Amino acid sequence: MARWFGAIEGGGTKWVCAVGDGLGSLDDFVRFETTSPHETLGRAIRFFERQPKPLSALGIGMFGPLDLNEKSPTYGYLTRTPKKGWADTDVLTPFRSRIKGPVVLELDVNVAVVGECRFGAGNGVDNLLYITVGTGIGGGYLCEGTLLHGVVHPEMGHVRVRRAAGDAFEGVCPFHGDCLEGMVSGPAIEARTGISARDLPEEHPVWALVGHYLGEALATYVLVLSPERIVLGGGVMERANLLPEVRQRMQEMLGGYVQHPSLQRNIDTYVVSSALHSRAGVMGALALARDACR
Amino acid sequence: MARWFGAIEGGGTKWVCAVGDGLGSLDDFVRFETTSPHETLGRAIRFFERQPKPLSALGIGMFGPLDLNEKSPTYGYLTRTPKKGWADTDVLTPFRSRIKGPVVLELDVNVAVVGECRFGAGNGVDNLLYITVGTGIGGGYLCEGTLLHGVVHPEMGHVRVRRAAGDAFEGVCPFHGDCLEGMVSGPAIEARTGISARDLPEEHPVWALVGHYLGEALATYVLVLSPERIVLGGGVMERANLLPEVRQRMQEMLGGYVQHPSLQRNIDTYVVSSALHSRAGVMGALALARDACR
Repeated sequence: MARWFGAIEGGGTKWVCAVGDGLGSLDDFVRFETTSPHETLGRAIRFFERQPKPLSALGIGMFGPLDLNEKSPTYGYLTRTPKKGWADTDVLTPFRSRIKGPVVLELDVNVAVVGECRFGAGNGVDNLLYITVGTGIGGGYLCEGTLLHGVVHPEMGHVRVRRAAGDAFEGVCPFHGDCLEGMVSGPAIEARTGISARDLPEEHPVWALVGHYLGEALATYVLVLSPERIVLGGGVMERANLLPEVRQRMQEMLGGYVQHPSLQRNIDTYVVSSALHSRAGVMGALALARDACR
Repeated sequence: MARWFGAIEGGGTKWVCAVGDGLGSLDDFVRFETTSPHETLGRAIRFFERQPKPLSALGIGMFGPLDLNEKSPTYGYLTRTPKKGWADTDVLTPFRSRIKGPVVLELDVNVAVVGECRFGAGNGVDNLLYITVGTGIGGGYLCEGTLLHGVVHPEMGHVRVRRAAGDAFEGVCPFHGDCLEGMVSGPAIEARTGISARDLPEEHPVWALVGHYLGEALATYVLVLSPERIVLGGGVMERANLLPEVRQRMQEMLGGYVQHPSLQRNIDTYVVSSALHSRAGVMGALALARDACR
Protein backbone atom coordinates (compact mmCIF):
# COMPACT_ATOMS: atom_id res chain seq x y z
CA MET A 1 0.00 0.00 0.00
CA ALA A 2 1.43 3.36 -1.00
CA ARG A 3 2.19 5.58 1.97
CA TRP A 4 0.41 8.84 2.33
CA PHE A 5 0.86 11.79 4.51
CA GLY A 6 -0.99 14.55 6.29
CA ALA A 7 -0.14 18.23 6.51
CA ILE A 8 -1.29 21.29 8.40
CA GLU A 9 -0.42 24.88 7.78
CA GLY A 10 -1.67 26.65 10.87
CA GLY A 11 -1.76 30.40 10.43
CA GLY A 12 -3.05 33.27 12.50
CA THR A 13 -5.97 33.85 10.12
CA LYS A 14 -6.64 30.46 8.55
CA TRP A 15 -5.63 26.85 8.72
CA VAL A 16 -5.06 24.58 5.74
CA CYS A 17 -5.10 20.78 6.12
CA ALA A 18 -4.23 18.37 3.33
CA VAL A 19 -3.30 14.80 2.54
CA GLY A 20 -1.08 13.66 -0.32
CA ASP A 21 1.98 11.73 -1.44
CA GLY A 22 4.57 14.34 -0.43
CA LEU A 23 5.77 14.52 -4.03
CA GLY A 24 3.60 17.42 -5.09
CA SER A 25 0.08 16.04 -5.41
CA LEU A 26 -2.79 16.74 -3.03
CA ASP A 27 -5.61 14.22 -2.49
CA ASP A 28 -7.75 16.22 -0.12
CA PHE A 29 -7.56 19.78 1.05
CA VAL A 30 -9.52 21.95 3.45
CA ARG A 31 -9.18 25.56 4.51
CA PHE A 32 -10.92 27.19 7.47
CA GLU A 33 -10.68 30.24 9.67
CA THR A 34 -8.53 30.28 12.79
CA THR A 35 -10.83 30.67 15.79
CA SER A 36 -10.14 29.41 19.33
CA PRO A 37 -7.40 26.78 19.82
CA HIS A 38 -9.95 24.16 20.93
CA GLU A 39 -12.23 24.64 17.93
CA THR A 40 -9.43 25.02 15.37
CA LEU A 41 -7.42 22.00 16.52
CA GLY A 42 -10.69 20.03 16.62
CA ARG A 43 -11.48 20.80 12.98
CA ALA A 44 -8.01 19.69 11.93
CA ILE A 45 -8.30 16.44 13.91
CA ARG A 46 -11.67 15.66 12.34
CA PHE A 47 -10.28 16.29 8.83
CA PHE A 48 -7.64 13.60 9.33
CA GLU A 49 -10.05 11.23 11.12
CA ARG A 50 -12.40 11.19 8.16
CA GLN A 51 -9.64 10.13 5.73
CA PRO A 52 -10.05 6.56 4.39
CA LYS A 53 -6.51 5.43 5.27
CA PRO A 54 -4.30 6.08 8.31
CA LEU A 55 -1.47 8.57 7.77
CA SER A 56 2.14 7.37 7.66
CA ALA A 57 3.28 10.71 9.06
CA LEU A 58 2.09 14.26 9.63
CA GLY A 59 3.89 17.52 8.88
CA ILE A 60 2.77 20.65 10.72
CA GLY A 61 3.76 24.20 9.85
CA MET A 62 2.59 26.55 12.60
CA PHE A 63 2.70 30.29 13.18
CA GLY A 64 5.10 31.36 15.90
CA PRO A 65 6.86 31.95 18.07
CA LEU A 66 7.05 28.23 18.75
CA ASP A 67 9.06 26.18 21.22
CA LEU A 68 10.90 23.80 18.87
CA ASN A 69 13.43 22.55 21.40
CA GLU A 70 12.68 18.83 21.73
CA LYS A 71 14.24 18.76 25.19
CA SER A 72 12.02 21.52 26.51
CA PRO A 73 9.00 20.68 28.73
CA THR A 74 6.96 23.01 26.50
CA TYR A 75 8.16 21.53 23.18
CA GLY A 76 5.45 22.07 20.60
CA TYR A 77 3.84 25.01 22.38
CA LEU A 78 3.18 28.42 20.94
CA THR A 79 4.98 30.89 23.21
CA ARG A 80 4.49 34.67 23.26
CA THR A 81 2.32 35.06 20.19
CA PRO A 82 0.36 38.30 19.85
CA LYS A 83 -2.54 36.14 18.54
CA LYS A 84 -5.27 36.30 21.19
CA GLY A 85 -5.99 33.09 23.09
CA TRP A 86 -3.14 31.15 21.45
CA ALA A 87 -0.19 31.90 23.75
CA ASP A 88 1.01 28.74 25.58
CA THR A 89 -1.10 26.42 23.42
CA ASP A 90 0.22 22.89 22.87
CA VAL A 91 -0.21 22.34 19.12
CA LEU A 92 1.72 19.07 18.97
CA THR A 93 0.25 16.64 21.51
CA PRO A 94 -3.31 16.59 20.07
CA PHE A 95 -1.82 15.14 16.85
CA ARG A 96 0.96 13.02 18.37
CA SER A 97 -1.57 11.22 20.51
CA ARG A 98 -3.69 10.31 17.45
CA ILE A 99 -1.13 9.50 14.75
CA LYS A 100 1.11 6.44 14.83
CA GLY A 101 3.91 7.70 12.59
CA PRO A 102 6.26 10.67 12.98
CA VAL A 103 4.80 14.13 13.54
CA VAL A 104 7.11 16.88 12.28
CA LEU A 105 6.57 20.36 13.67
CA GLU A 106 8.04 23.39 11.94
CA LEU A 107 7.40 27.09 11.72
CA ASP A 108 4.79 27.93 9.04
CA VAL A 109 7.32 29.82 6.92
CA ASN A 110 9.71 26.86 7.10
CA VAL A 111 7.22 24.46 5.56
CA ALA A 112 6.38 27.11 2.96
CA VAL A 113 10.02 27.59 1.95
CA VAL A 114 10.35 23.80 1.58
CA GLY A 115 7.17 23.75 -0.54
CA GLU A 116 8.37 26.54 -2.84
CA CYS A 117 11.82 24.90 -3.12
CA ARG A 118 10.51 21.44 -4.01
CA PHE A 119 7.45 22.31 -6.10
CA GLY A 120 7.13 26.07 -6.57
CA ALA A 121 8.82 29.35 -7.44
CA GLY A 122 12.11 28.38 -5.81
CA ASN A 123 12.37 25.00 -7.47
CA GLY A 124 15.91 23.69 -7.18
CA VAL A 125 17.27 26.78 -5.40
CA ASP A 126 19.33 25.63 -2.41
CA ASN A 127 19.67 29.03 -0.76
CA LEU A 128 16.10 30.20 -0.79
CA LEU A 129 14.31 32.85 1.21
CA TYR A 130 10.52 32.78 1.58
CA ILE A 131 8.78 35.79 3.06
CA THR A 132 5.07 35.93 3.78
CA VAL A 133 3.26 39.24 4.20
CA GLY A 134 -0.22 38.77 5.62
CA THR A 135 -1.69 38.88 9.11
CA GLY A 136 1.90 38.62 10.23
CA ILE A 137 5.21 38.89 8.41
CA GLY A 138 7.69 36.04 8.62
CA GLY A 139 10.49 34.38 6.76
CA GLY A 140 11.94 30.91 6.30
CA TYR A 141 15.38 30.18 4.90
CA LEU A 142 17.02 27.19 3.28
CA CYS A 143 20.81 27.35 3.57
CA GLU A 144 22.38 24.84 1.18
CA GLY A 145 19.08 22.96 1.35
CA THR A 146 18.95 22.86 5.17
CA LEU A 147 16.31 24.76 7.12
CA LEU A 148 17.80 27.52 9.21
CA HIS A 149 16.73 27.02 12.84
CA GLY A 150 19.46 28.15 15.20
CA VAL A 151 18.68 28.88 18.83
CA VAL A 152 14.90 29.16 18.33
CA HIS A 153 13.88 30.08 14.80
CA PRO A 154 14.07 33.30 12.79
CA GLU A 155 11.46 35.98 13.35
CA MET A 156 12.30 38.02 10.27
CA GLY A 157 9.11 40.06 10.24
CA HIS A 158 10.11 41.78 13.46
CA VAL A 159 13.22 43.54 12.13
CA ARG A 160 13.12 47.29 12.60
CA VAL A 161 12.87 49.54 9.58
CA ARG A 162 13.80 53.17 9.20
CA ARG A 163 10.80 55.43 9.29
CA ALA A 164 9.89 56.87 5.88
CA ALA A 165 9.81 60.66 5.74
CA GLY A 166 6.43 61.95 6.87
CA ASP A 167 5.15 58.59 8.15
CA ALA A 168 3.93 59.10 11.72
CA PHE A 169 2.08 55.76 12.06
CA GLU A 170 3.04 54.27 15.42
CA GLY A 171 2.81 50.63 14.36
CA VAL A 172 0.64 47.77 15.61
CA CYS A 173 3.12 45.17 16.88
CA PRO A 174 2.35 44.59 20.58
CA PHE A 175 6.02 43.78 21.22
CA HIS A 176 7.88 46.33 19.08
CA GLY A 177 5.35 48.86 17.83
CA ASP A 178 6.98 49.91 14.58
CA CYS A 179 8.91 46.83 13.47
CA LEU A 180 8.27 45.71 9.87
CA GLU A 181 5.23 43.64 10.89
CA GLY A 182 3.96 46.52 12.98
CA MET A 183 4.22 48.88 10.01
CA VAL A 184 2.99 46.96 6.95
CA SER A 185 1.32 43.65 7.87
CA GLY A 186 -2.33 43.29 6.88
CA PRO A 187 -3.58 44.57 10.27
CA ALA A 188 -1.13 47.51 10.06
CA ILE A 189 -2.45 48.47 6.62
CA GLU A 190 -5.99 48.30 7.94
CA ALA A 191 -5.08 50.38 11.00
CA ARG A 192 -3.44 52.97 8.71
CA THR A 193 -6.35 53.29 6.30
CA GLY A 194 -9.46 52.04 8.07
CA ILE A 195 -9.96 49.66 5.15
CA SER A 196 -9.02 46.00 4.95
CA ALA A 197 -5.90 45.51 2.77
CA ARG A 198 -7.96 43.22 0.54
CA ASP A 199 -10.45 46.00 -0.26
CA LEU A 200 -8.00 48.87 -0.66
CA PRO A 201 -7.93 50.34 -4.17
CA GLU A 202 -4.78 49.77 -6.22
CA GLU A 203 -4.09 53.52 -6.38
CA HIS A 204 -4.22 54.10 -2.60
CA PRO A 205 -1.06 55.96 -1.50
CA VAL A 206 -0.42 53.46 1.31
CA TRP A 207 0.83 50.89 -1.24
CA ALA A 208 3.90 53.01 -1.98
CA LEU A 209 4.74 52.99 1.73
CA VAL A 210 4.21 49.24 1.95
CA GLY A 211 6.59 48.73 -0.99
CA HIS A 212 9.07 51.10 0.61
CA TYR A 213 9.27 49.25 3.92
CA LEU A 214 9.22 45.78 2.39
CA GLY A 215 11.99 46.76 -0.04
CA GLU A 216 14.11 48.05 2.82
CA ALA A 217 13.58 44.83 4.78
CA LEU A 218 14.43 42.71 1.73
CA ALA A 219 17.69 44.64 1.35
CA THR A 220 18.47 43.75 4.97
CA TYR A 221 17.74 40.08 4.32
CA VAL A 222 19.98 40.14 1.22
CA LEU A 223 22.84 41.68 3.23
CA VAL A 224 22.50 39.16 6.08
CA LEU A 225 21.56 35.95 4.24
CA SER A 226 22.67 36.45 0.63
CA PRO A 227 19.83 34.31 -0.77
CA GLU A 228 19.90 33.00 -4.34
CA ARG A 229 16.22 33.83 -4.75
CA ILE A 230 13.44 35.46 -2.72
CA VAL A 231 9.87 34.18 -2.95
CA LEU A 232 7.15 36.47 -1.62
CA GLY A 233 3.80 35.08 -0.49
CA GLY A 234 0.89 35.99 1.77
CA GLY A 235 -2.31 37.91 1.25
CA VAL A 236 -0.78 41.39 1.07
CA MET A 237 1.54 40.30 -1.76
CA GLU A 238 -1.45 39.35 -3.95
CA ARG A 239 -1.53 43.04 -4.89
CA ALA A 240 -0.12 43.10 -8.44
CA ASN A 241 1.52 46.54 -8.29
CA LEU A 242 3.39 45.83 -5.09
CA LEU A 243 6.10 43.47 -6.34
CA PRO A 244 7.77 45.94 -8.76
CA GLU A 245 7.79 48.60 -6.00
CA VAL A 246 9.44 46.19 -3.59
CA ARG A 247 12.11 45.21 -6.13
CA GLN A 248 12.92 48.82 -6.94
CA ARG A 249 13.14 49.92 -3.33
CA MET A 250 15.32 46.93 -2.46
CA GLN A 251 17.75 47.86 -5.23
CA GLU A 252 17.83 51.50 -4.12
CA MET A 253 18.64 50.44 -0.57
CA LEU A 254 21.46 48.15 -1.71
CA GLY A 255 22.96 51.02 -3.71
CA GLY A 256 24.65 48.68 -6.18
CA TYR A 257 26.99 47.46 -3.47
CA VAL A 258 26.35 43.75 -3.91
CA GLN A 259 27.35 43.04 -7.50
CA HIS A 260 25.63 40.07 -9.09
CA PRO A 261 23.41 39.75 -12.17
CA SER A 262 20.60 38.45 -9.90
CA LEU A 263 20.53 41.75 -8.08
CA GLN A 264 20.81 43.91 -11.16
CA ARG A 265 19.55 42.88 -14.59
CA ASN A 266 17.91 39.65 -13.43
CA ILE A 267 16.01 41.22 -10.55
CA ASP A 268 12.65 40.08 -11.98
CA THR A 269 13.62 36.44 -11.52
CA TYR A 270 15.37 37.13 -8.20
CA VAL A 271 12.42 38.54 -6.25
CA VAL A 272 9.37 36.55 -7.35
CA SER A 273 5.81 35.76 -6.28
CA SER A 274 4.85 32.51 -4.64
CA ALA A 275 3.83 29.91 -7.22
CA LEU A 276 1.91 27.75 -4.77
CA HIS A 277 0.09 30.47 -2.79
CA SER A 278 -1.97 28.94 0.01
CA ARG A 279 -0.75 25.44 -0.90
CA ALA A 280 2.95 26.21 -0.30
CA GLY A 281 2.76 25.37 3.38
CA VAL A 282 0.92 22.07 3.13
CA MET A 283 2.95 20.90 0.14
CA GLY A 284 6.15 21.58 2.10
CA ALA A 285 4.72 19.97 5.22
CA LEU A 286 3.76 16.85 3.22
CA ALA A 287 7.30 16.69 1.82
CA LEU A 288 8.77 16.94 5.34
CA ALA A 289 6.39 14.23 6.57
CA ARG A 290 7.56 12.01 3.72
CA ASP A 291 11.23 12.81 4.54
CA ALA A 292 10.58 11.77 8.15
CA CYS A 293 9.62 8.26 6.98
CA ARG A 294 12.80 7.66 4.99
CA MET B 1 56.18 14.01 6.58
CA ALA B 2 53.37 15.76 8.48
CA ARG B 3 51.39 18.08 6.25
CA TRP B 4 51.32 21.73 7.01
CA PHE B 5 49.31 24.59 5.79
CA GLY B 6 49.44 28.28 5.05
CA ALA B 7 46.89 30.95 5.88
CA ILE B 8 46.24 34.59 5.07
CA GLU B 9 43.79 36.93 6.66
CA GLY B 10 43.78 39.91 4.34
CA GLY B 11 42.07 42.91 5.89
CA GLY B 12 41.63 46.50 4.86
CA THR B 13 44.07 47.70 7.54
CA LYS B 14 46.44 44.80 8.06
CA TRP B 15 47.29 41.37 6.77
CA VAL B 16 48.15 38.35 8.87
CA CYS B 17 50.00 35.37 7.38
CA ALA B 18 50.64 32.14 9.25
CA VAL B 19 51.63 28.51 8.88
CA GLY B 20 50.48 25.64 11.08
CA ASP B 21 48.87 22.23 11.33
CA GLY B 22 45.25 23.39 10.96
CA LEU B 23 44.43 21.89 14.36
CA GLY B 24 45.00 25.01 16.40
CA SER B 25 48.75 25.52 16.55
CA LEU B 26 50.70 28.20 14.69
CA ASP B 27 54.33 27.67 13.65
CA ASP B 28 55.04 31.06 12.15
CA PHE B 29 53.02 34.24 12.09
CA VAL B 30 53.49 37.69 10.60
CA ARG B 31 51.35 40.80 10.65
CA PHE B 32 51.81 43.87 8.46
CA GLU B 33 49.95 46.91 7.24
CA THR B 34 47.82 46.80 4.14
CA THR B 35 49.38 49.14 1.57
CA SER B 36 49.11 48.79 -2.23
CA PRO B 37 47.98 45.46 -3.67
CA HIS B 38 51.39 44.89 -5.32
CA GLU B 39 53.37 45.50 -2.16
CA THR B 40 50.96 43.68 0.18
CA LEU B 41 50.60 40.57 -1.98
CA GLY B 42 54.40 40.59 -2.40
CA ARG B 43 54.99 40.51 1.35
CA ALA B 44 52.61 37.59 1.77
CA ILE B 45 54.27 35.66 -1.08
CA ARG B 46 57.72 36.20 0.44
CA PHE B 47 56.47 35.00 3.86
CA PHE B 48 55.46 31.66 2.39
CA GLU B 49 58.56 31.40 0.15
CA ARG B 50 60.86 31.65 3.14
CA GLN B 51 59.16 28.72 4.93
CA PRO B 52 61.36 25.59 5.18
CA LYS B 53 58.77 23.19 3.74
CA PRO B 54 56.29 23.55 0.88
CA LEU B 55 52.65 24.05 1.91
CA SER B 56 50.10 21.28 1.39
CA ALA B 57 47.37 23.87 0.94
CA LEU B 58 46.64 27.54 1.55
CA GLY B 59 43.54 29.12 3.09
CA ILE B 60 42.84 32.78 2.37
CA GLY B 61 40.33 34.96 4.16
CA MET B 62 39.97 38.27 2.35
CA PHE B 63 38.01 41.45 2.89
CA GLY B 64 35.18 41.96 0.44
CA PRO B 65 33.18 42.25 -1.60
CA LEU B 66 34.80 39.30 -3.37
CA ASP B 67 33.84 37.36 -6.48
CA LEU B 68 33.59 33.82 -5.09
CA ASN B 69 31.78 32.29 -8.07
CA GLU B 70 34.22 29.72 -9.44
CA LYS B 71 32.63 29.92 -12.88
CA SER B 72 33.10 33.67 -13.14
CA PRO B 73 35.96 35.10 -15.26
CA THR B 74 36.79 37.34 -12.30
CA TYR B 75 36.72 34.57 -9.66
CA GLY B 76 39.02 35.56 -6.82
CA TYR B 77 38.84 39.29 -7.52
CA LEU B 78 37.88 41.99 -5.09
CA THR B 79 34.92 43.80 -6.64
CA ARG B 80 33.50 47.15 -5.51
CA THR B 81 35.47 47.61 -2.33
CA PRO B 82 35.64 51.14 -0.89
CA LYS B 83 39.32 50.40 -0.06
CA LYS B 84 41.40 52.64 -2.33
CA GLY B 85 43.44 50.92 -5.03
CA TRP B 86 42.03 47.46 -4.28
CA ALA B 87 38.90 47.30 -6.46
CA ASP B 88 39.25 44.69 -9.24
CA THR B 89 42.38 43.16 -7.71
CA ASP B 90 43.00 39.45 -8.35
CA VAL B 91 43.93 38.10 -4.90
CA LEU B 92 43.86 34.44 -5.88
CA THR B 93 46.12 33.90 -8.92
CA PRO B 94 49.34 35.16 -7.28
CA PHE B 95 49.02 32.30 -4.77
CA ARG B 96 47.50 29.67 -7.05
CA SER B 97 50.43 30.04 -9.40
CA ARG B 98 52.95 29.43 -6.63
CA ILE B 99 51.34 26.71 -4.49
CA LYS B 100 50.86 23.12 -5.66
CA GLY B 101 47.99 22.14 -3.35
CA PRO B 102 44.47 23.56 -3.03
CA VAL B 103 44.02 27.28 -2.43
CA VAL B 104 40.77 28.02 -0.59
CA LEU B 105 39.42 31.56 -0.84
CA GLU B 106 36.82 32.83 1.60
CA LEU B 107 35.60 36.09 2.97
CA ASP B 108 37.66 37.27 5.99
CA VAL B 109 34.69 36.95 8.35
CA ASN B 110 34.06 33.41 7.13
CA VAL B 111 37.52 32.20 8.07
CA ALA B 112 37.16 34.02 11.40
CA VAL B 113 33.85 32.32 12.22
CA VAL B 114 35.45 28.95 11.42
CA GLY B 115 38.41 29.83 13.66
CA GLU B 116 36.19 30.83 16.58
CA CYS B 117 34.01 27.72 16.10
CA ARG B 118 36.92 25.27 16.03
CA PHE B 119 39.31 26.86 18.50
CA GLY B 120 37.79 29.95 20.10
CA ALA B 121 34.79 31.56 21.76
CA GLY B 122 32.28 29.63 19.65
CA ASN B 123 33.83 26.24 20.23
CA GLY B 124 31.39 23.53 19.27
CA VAL B 125 28.54 25.91 18.39
CA ASP B 126 27.06 24.85 15.03
CA ASN B 127 24.96 27.97 14.46
CA LEU B 128 27.51 30.67 15.10
CA LEU B 129 27.61 34.32 14.12
CA TYR B 130 30.90 36.22 14.06
CA ILE B 131 30.81 39.99 13.70
CA THR B 132 33.91 42.13 13.33
CA VAL B 133 33.83 45.85 14.08
CA GLY B 134 36.96 47.59 12.87
CA THR B 135 37.93 49.44 9.69
CA GLY B 136 34.83 47.80 8.26
CA ILE B 137 31.99 45.86 9.81
CA GLY B 138 31.20 42.39 8.56
CA GLY B 139 29.73 39.08 9.62
CA GLY B 140 30.21 35.40 8.90
CA TYR B 141 27.68 32.69 9.73
CA LEU B 142 27.86 28.96 10.25
CA CYS B 143 24.45 27.33 9.74
CA GLU B 144 24.51 23.79 11.16
CA GLY B 145 28.29 23.93 10.69
CA THR B 146 28.13 25.03 7.04
CA LEU B 147 29.35 28.46 5.95
CA LEU B 148 26.54 30.61 4.67
CA HIS B 149 27.42 31.81 1.16
CA GLY B 150 24.31 32.11 -0.97
CA VAL B 151 24.34 34.16 -4.15
CA VAL B 152 27.54 36.11 -3.31
CA HIS B 153 28.24 36.30 0.41
CA PRO B 154 26.65 38.22 3.27
CA GLU B 155 27.57 41.88 3.76
CA MET B 156 26.09 42.23 7.21
CA GLY B 157 27.88 45.46 8.10
CA HIS B 158 25.90 47.33 5.47
CA VAL B 159 22.45 46.86 7.00
CA ARG B 160 20.66 50.13 7.68
CA VAL B 161 20.04 51.19 11.26
CA ARG B 162 17.47 53.59 12.60
CA ARG B 163 18.96 56.95 13.45
CA ALA B 164 19.34 57.57 17.19
CA ALA B 165 17.54 60.68 18.45
CA GLY B 166 19.77 63.73 18.01
CA ASP B 167 22.42 61.97 15.91
CA ALA B 168 22.96 64.05 12.77
CA PHE B 169 26.16 62.33 11.60
CA GLU B 170 25.79 61.63 7.88
CA GLY B 171 27.86 58.42 7.83
CA VAL B 172 31.03 57.52 5.95
CA CYS B 173 30.06 54.55 3.78
CA PRO B 174 30.70 55.55 0.16
CA PHE B 175 27.85 53.29 -0.98
CA HIS B 176 25.16 53.83 1.65
CA GLY B 177 26.22 56.76 3.82
CA ASP B 178 24.56 55.87 7.09
CA CYS B 179 24.48 52.07 7.07
CA LEU B 180 25.88 50.39 10.22
CA GLU B 181 29.46 50.48 8.86
CA GLY B 182 28.97 54.09 7.83
CA MET B 183 27.83 55.02 11.33
CA VAL B 184 30.08 53.14 13.78
CA SER B 185 33.07 51.52 12.04
CA GLY B 186 36.50 52.69 13.18
CA PRO B 187 36.69 55.37 10.44
CA ALA B 188 33.14 56.53 11.31
CA ILE B 189 34.09 56.94 14.97
CA GLU B 190 37.15 58.91 13.94
CA ALA B 191 35.09 61.09 11.59
CA ARG B 192 32.58 61.75 14.38
CA THR B 193 35.14 62.72 17.02
CA GLY B 194 38.32 63.74 15.20
CA ILE B 195 40.15 61.16 17.32
CA SER B 196 41.13 57.63 16.35
CA ALA B 197 38.83 55.07 18.03
CA ARG B 198 41.95 53.54 19.62
CA ASP B 199 42.80 56.81 21.41
CA LEU B 200 39.30 57.83 22.47
CA PRO B 201 38.80 57.96 26.24
CA GLU B 202 36.51 55.33 27.76
CA GLU B 203 34.08 58.03 28.97
CA HIS B 204 33.61 59.69 25.56
CA PRO B 205 29.86 59.99 24.81
CA VAL B 206 30.30 58.46 21.34
CA TRP B 207 30.67 54.98 22.89
CA ALA B 208 27.04 54.99 24.00
CA LEU B 209 26.02 55.67 20.38
CA VAL B 210 28.31 52.91 19.12
CA GLY B 211 26.73 50.46 21.58
CA HIS B 212 23.28 51.66 20.55
CA TYR B 213 23.74 51.03 16.84
CA LEU B 214 25.61 47.76 17.27
CA GLY B 215 22.92 46.48 19.66
CA GLU B 216 20.22 47.36 17.14
CA ALA B 217 22.10 45.55 14.35
CA LEU B 218 22.64 42.49 16.56
CA ALA B 219 18.89 42.36 17.24
CA THR B 220 18.35 42.33 13.47
CA TYR B 221 20.84 39.47 13.05
CA VAL B 222 19.11 37.51 15.83
CA LEU B 223 15.72 37.97 14.16
CA VAL B 224 17.02 36.93 10.73
CA LEU B 225 19.55 34.20 11.60
CA SER B 226 18.62 32.99 15.10
CA PRO B 227 22.25 32.20 16.00
CA GLU B 228 23.12 30.03 19.00
CA ARG B 229 25.93 32.40 19.93
CA ILE B 230 27.39 35.70 18.71
CA VAL B 231 31.15 36.34 18.83
CA LEU B 232 32.28 39.95 18.47
CA GLY B 233 35.78 40.78 17.25
CA GLY B 234 37.67 43.62 15.59
CA GLY B 235 39.57 46.62 16.94
CA VAL B 236 36.54 48.67 18.01
CA MET B 237 35.29 45.80 20.19
CA GLU B 238 38.52 45.83 22.24
CA ARG B 239 36.87 48.62 24.24
CA ALA B 240 35.91 46.91 27.53
CA ASN B 241 32.78 48.97 28.30
CA LEU B 242 31.25 48.42 24.87
CA LEU B 243 30.14 44.79 25.14
CA PRO B 244 27.68 45.28 28.04
CA GLU B 245 26.14 48.27 26.21
CA VAL B 246 25.70 46.20 23.06
CA ARG B 247 24.05 43.33 24.96
CA GLN B 248 21.65 45.65 26.75
CA ARG B 249 20.63 47.52 23.62
CA MET B 250 20.13 44.26 21.73
CA GLN B 251 17.78 43.00 24.46
CA GLU B 252 15.86 46.29 24.47
CA MET B 253 15.37 46.08 20.71
CA LEU B 254 14.14 42.48 20.90
CA GLY B 255 11.61 43.51 23.55
CA GLY B 256 11.47 40.03 25.07
CA TYR B 257 9.81 38.68 21.93
CA VAL B 258 12.22 35.84 21.29
CA GLN B 259 11.99 33.68 24.41
CA HIS B 260 15.06 31.61 25.19
CA PRO B 261 17.40 31.53 28.19
CA SER B 262 20.28 32.51 25.87
CA LEU B 263 18.58 35.79 25.13
CA GLN B 264 17.53 36.51 28.68
CA ARG B 265 19.40 35.27 31.73
CA ASN B 266 22.32 33.76 29.81
CA ILE B 267 22.98 36.84 27.68
CA ASP B 268 26.58 37.13 28.97
CA THR B 269 27.48 33.80 27.37
CA TYR B 270 25.36 34.50 24.27
CA VAL B 271 27.07 37.68 23.07
CA VAL B 272 30.78 37.22 23.76
CA SER B 273 34.17 38.64 22.80
CA SER B 274 36.46 36.92 20.35
CA ALA B 275 38.83 34.52 22.12
CA LEU B 276 41.36 34.43 19.29
CA HIS B 277 41.47 38.13 18.37
CA SER B 278 43.78 38.73 15.40
CA ARG B 279 44.50 34.98 15.14
CA ALA B 280 40.86 33.97 14.51
CA GLY B 281 41.13 34.47 10.76
CA VAL B 282 44.37 32.59 10.17
CA MET B 283 43.40 29.76 12.50
CA GLY B 284 40.14 29.33 10.61
CA ALA B 285 41.91 29.62 7.24
CA LEU B 286 44.43 26.94 8.30
CA ALA B 287 41.55 24.67 9.30
CA LEU B 288 39.85 25.20 5.92
CA ALA B 289 43.15 24.51 4.13
CA ARG B 290 43.44 21.27 6.09
CA ASP B 291 39.81 20.36 5.28
CA ALA B 292 40.58 20.90 1.57
CA CYS B 293 43.22 18.14 1.71
CA ARG B 294 40.91 15.51 3.20
